[in-house]
Amino acid sequence: MSQARQDVVGIGNAIVDVIAHAEDRFLAAQSMAKGAMTLIEAERAEALYARMGPGVEMSGGSAANSMAGLASLGGRAAFIGKVRDDQLGAIFAHDIRAAGVTFRTPPAKAGPQTARCLIFVTPDAQRTMNTYLGASVELGPEDVEEELIAAAQVTYLEGYLWDKPRAKEAFRKAARIAHEAGAKVALTLSDPFCVERHRAEFQELVKGPVDILFANDAEIRALWQVGDFDAALAATKGQVGTAALTRSEKGSVVLAGERIDRVPAEPVERVVDTTGAGDLYAAGFLYGLTNGRPPAEAARIGAIAAAEVVSHVGARPERPLKALVAERLG
Amino acid sequence: MSQARQDVVGIGNAIVDVIAHAEDRFLAAQSMAKGAMTLIEAERAEALYARMGPGVEMSGGSAANSMAGLASLGGRAAFIGKVRDDQLGAIFAHDIRAAGVTFRTPPAKAGPQTARCLIFVTPDAQRTMNTYLGASVELGPEDVEEELIAAAQVTYLEGYLWDKPRAKEAFRKAARIAHEAGAKVALTLSDPFCVERHRAEFQELVKGPVDILFANDAEIRALWQVGDFDAALAATKGQVGTAALTRSEKGSVVLAGERIDRVPAEPVERVVDTTGAGDLYAAGFLYGLTNGRPPAEAARIGAIAAAEVVSHVGARPERPLKALVAERLG
Repeated sequence: MSQARQDVVGIGNAIVDVIAHAEDRFLAAQSMAKGAMTLIEAERAEALYARMGPGVEMSGGSAANSMAGLASLGGRAAFIGKVRDDQLGAIFAHDIRAAGVTFRTPPAKAGPQTARCLIFVTPDAQRTMNTYLGASVELGPEDVEEELIAAAQVTYLEGYLWDKPRAKEAFRKAARIAHEAGAKVALTLSDPFCVERHRAEFQELVKGPVDILFANDAEIRALWQVGDFDAALAATKGQVGTAALTRSEKGSVVLAGERIDRVPAEPVERVVDTTGAGDLYAAGFLYGLTNGRPPAEAARIGAIAAAEVVSHVGARPERPLKALVAERLG
Repeated sequence: MSQARQDVVGIGNAIVDVIAHAEDRFLAAQSMAKGAMTLIEAERAEALYARMGPGVEMSGGSAANSMAGLASLGGRAAFIGKVRDDQLGAIFAHDIRAAGVTFRTPPAKAGPQTARCLIFVTPDAQRTMNTYLGASVELGPEDVEEELIAAAQVTYLEGYLWDKPRAKEAFRKAARIAHEAGAKVALTLSDPFCVERHRAEFQELVKGPVDILFANDAEIRALWQVGDFDAALAATKGQVGTAALTRSEKGSVVLAGERIDRVPAEPVERVVDTTGAGDLYAAGFLYGLTNGRPPAEAARIGAIAAAEVVSHVGARPERPLKALVAERLG
């Protein structure tokens, strides 16, 4: 099969988000770790949903959000992830294709339902996520399309994949194919608790096959088990080709070989929902990188994309990012 | 079974909305009647969804939106409508219960999927709706819970029910029970094309069993086949106990016996999506009426509720309406 060249292929959990507003005391009463992503089983998902306020459903998934963002920026993106052949799966597949992303992983015909993430947005715009992985755990190496990976400049993997053994195999296979094709491998650490669960292996990945690393402040500190950002920055230096480290309103720091760039956050009139901020930063950064922009400019594009997504509910862009970036970068 | 007293029971199609932005030229290319609600079959729904941009899913349905609004205002609301036992049906049932509305119509265990409405919002914030009725056509007189209706002050019926014979039977049964219990029957004309389809019968309903009528400018003109609003107002006078006629930014006119009140629209900073404006006006008006407020004040509460819902995407309130009304009415 001939293959149109891709900028980036993302591999991750294919999830539909269920978003509702909640008060901090609700999070406390439900023993949720505020700001984190917690994996939950079907039974807990049912119980939590029963207590949740009226919701909005929108396609999500970390790497999937990044690929939707990349397409909105004008990049050529593909996504690999597993849904079930159910209504939520049809919604996920529709939305990512409608965003302009190549998506052809066949849905599972049996087994658990399409993954969903119950997201509680508190009045401070912070999001707290509870993910029922459902069908997305069925993702395995057989879903990693060799030609798709080989035709991309970057294969982008979410750390969340490490939570399930077959997804991990898929991850390793994709990284191997990418490198054999002379392409780069990017990883996002996803979540500080995810880093806690897989620290040793993530350290090996960062020192080994990973060419481009994404992490926020809490994640990079968890990776190296250090208390402050500067120590984490120092620990990262020399371990990976490129690292883009995000610090919310403090902007981001990009390490590329010996070079360090500090890029401010983009101003946001009102932060409504932080869901997807990291995903969209990664989208912008990868778009810049795969389109020949220097790291600081790539980080700036990431900041612009992240600023758009935190200004409304939901983890995918509402405005066409290509036009927004053209306007902001001038 | 003992029954807590309800303010209003709404009966209508149980629908999940799928909302996306679209340009006017897209509507034209798809031969859609802008601003209207068009009934579509499963095949057309599939084809249209395939061409639709990335969407957001939210519970909808005209009378269901009104009941969610009524509960948000602090009223006691119940809803009767039919979903299938599928994922979208579970979402509908969750959202309406989470909004505080009594909902216990059993889902259909076979037959078509839960109803969905593909809503295209154009840059002028106008919504154009394409409804696949799915499981909601299974609603029949057996779903009309006698005790629920008899315990309510008002039974609120959407004109859309008239599109399917069994729903029409349910409508008639509910109206009969309400009147036997000394309660009132309210009707919304729903949509000008819906009025075109059922004009003669709607005229009979208005002159007959209906005590409270809701209609917008286009609907009331369609009902009496007159060209301007004043003629429609004159035609309505004396035909029905109470009529609340809405005119978007021109406010509303309430006829109650010999009395006419003209109530201005509530100012809105930015109209984002008009979906649900009429539904929330009805919610506010019915809340006022069932809580002993004079018609003009009930209309004002309707205007406040409508202003909230047009200020964001989706047909159900995002802010607790009770507090909003308290703040605005002072």
